[in-house]
Amino acid sequence: MRFEVLTIFPDLFTSPLQEGILKRALLADQIRVNLHNIREWATDKHAMTDDRPFGGGEGMVMKPEPLAACLKDVQADGKGTVVLLSPRGAVYSQETAERLAGLDKLILVCGRYEGVDERFRRLYVDEELSIGDYILTGGELAAMVVIDSVTRVLPGVLGCADSAARDTFSCGLLKHGQYTRPREFSGLSVPEVLLNGDHARIEEYRFLESVRETLHRRPDLLGKVTFSKAEKKQLRRAGLLNQVQQAASGQPQQN
Amino acid sequence: MRFEVLTIFPDLFTSPLQEGILKRALLADQIRVNLHNIREWATDKHAMTDDRPFGGGEGMVMKPEPLAACLKDVQADGKGTVVLLSPRGAVYSQETAERLAGLDKLILVCGRYEGVDERFRRLYVDEELSIGDYILTGGELAAMVVIDSVTRVLPGVLGCADSAARDTFSCGLLKHGQYTRPREFSGLSVPEVLLNGDHARIEEYRFLESVRETLHRRPDLLGKVTFSKAEKKQLRRAGLLNQVQQAASGQPQQN
Repeated sequence: MRFEVLTIFPDLFTSPLQEGILKRALLADQIRVNLHNIREWATDKHAMTDDRPFGGGEGMVMKPEPLAACLKDVQADGKGTVVLLSPRGAVYSQETAERLAGLDKLILVCGRYEGVDERFRRLYVDEELSIGDYILTGGELAAMVVIDSVTRVLPGVLGCADSAARDTFSCGLLKHGQYTRPREFSGLSVPEVLLNGDHARIEEYRFLESVRETLHRRPDLLGKVTFSKAEKKQLRRAGLLNQVQQAASGQPQQN
Repeated sequence: MRFEVLTIFPDLFTSPLQEGILKRALLADQIRVNLHNIREWATDKHAMTDDRPFGGGEGMVMKPEPLAACLKDVQADGKGTVVLLSPRGAVYSQETAERLAGLDKLILVCGRYEGVDERFRRLYVDEELSIGDYILTGGELAAMVVIDSVTRVLPGVLGCADSAARDTFSCGLLKHGQYTRPREFSGLSVPEVLLNGDHARIEEYRFLESVRETLHRRPDLLGKVTFSKAEKKQLRRAGLLNQVQQAASGQPQQN
């Protein structure tokens, strides 16, 4: 899969792409990341990519022409899908990551300052995404988040095939707590059930822990989870079924 | 303000800290970012910071002792506030950014793999935060997002004092579209109202555009917005008041 990034700070991406799973995916040619400095498409003598907003107000707005010219060149070998990272976008989620992972060419446009000129957005942007309800100094970190989360769900990128499939969110629940050695740490022991090798009991314990975590921290997620008959039985036995159903019905459908 | 980051990939932070507003804030001593490589606190000969999970399953879990030993040293000059970045955390928002910006010392613990040993989390973590409902290859990008969004709301960091105050989310609405030169771009003109210098009309136009954007893309945000009498009058005149009230009441209180 290919990521094309339009940014005024291409160097910002250097070190995050040189570590861990992204580095490995790049070396294995599972992904390519091409960085394009919008400034190189500016036409005035100061290579300006921003200007003051019409109508007044603080801050600067990214000019439409350098963005459009840069995008045109990036699209020369295929239109791809153009995503603008911006706090006004639809909220990015694991579902979106999985959908984007099906694309061949994803073009990420990083806004800065007060955003990009509205006309560029209307004419060229296929999708506007926000990685969360907070403001960043620019879209670059958001683009990194998209590259990272999309890459990790590409087939073959993670070591074990099912590591991504059993994540938090993939089944709609938060993940259960995990324990590793030592058995005893600062007076706290690893739960007995994890030590006895009874895999059915371990599965049930972890499932119920996931449900408890989700009930406690993110009950809003439960409205979207479908439980199997066997899972419902486990929930009933643990005295959690009513709470779960209440939490699920109390939440409206979010889009 | 001081950020202390516990990570196994300290180099990942290099380039994002060398650009734009973060670089400026570092040079101006408005923030400090200290990176701590957890591996240096590992005690076995291979400097292992992770191990297999008890109870089986794919992936690795971060061991509690190196994390605890590293944290102890980082807390030698003051406990600070310990935040673990993890998809199981409370959802990070602009409100959280503004709250964290009031701290002197924020300690960010970056999870990797299948997460950190549950006992470390229970014993040492003050707050667990998730930057969104998606999975990253590690907490490092999430920590960068926190550093970036917190830094930009620190007093004196942004050029103009009110640039942050008028952002998307700060008033609860998405921001209106912005336009800069040229007046005419690919057949699209800047809206007339922005060109005539009538500031009251410009304000009203931008306010109504913000409301329309929010109604269209993120109606879920409207339940939390309080409109002034004057704003309600503008909404009524624009024929938007009913829609806004409906959207606001259709949404339950989220925590």
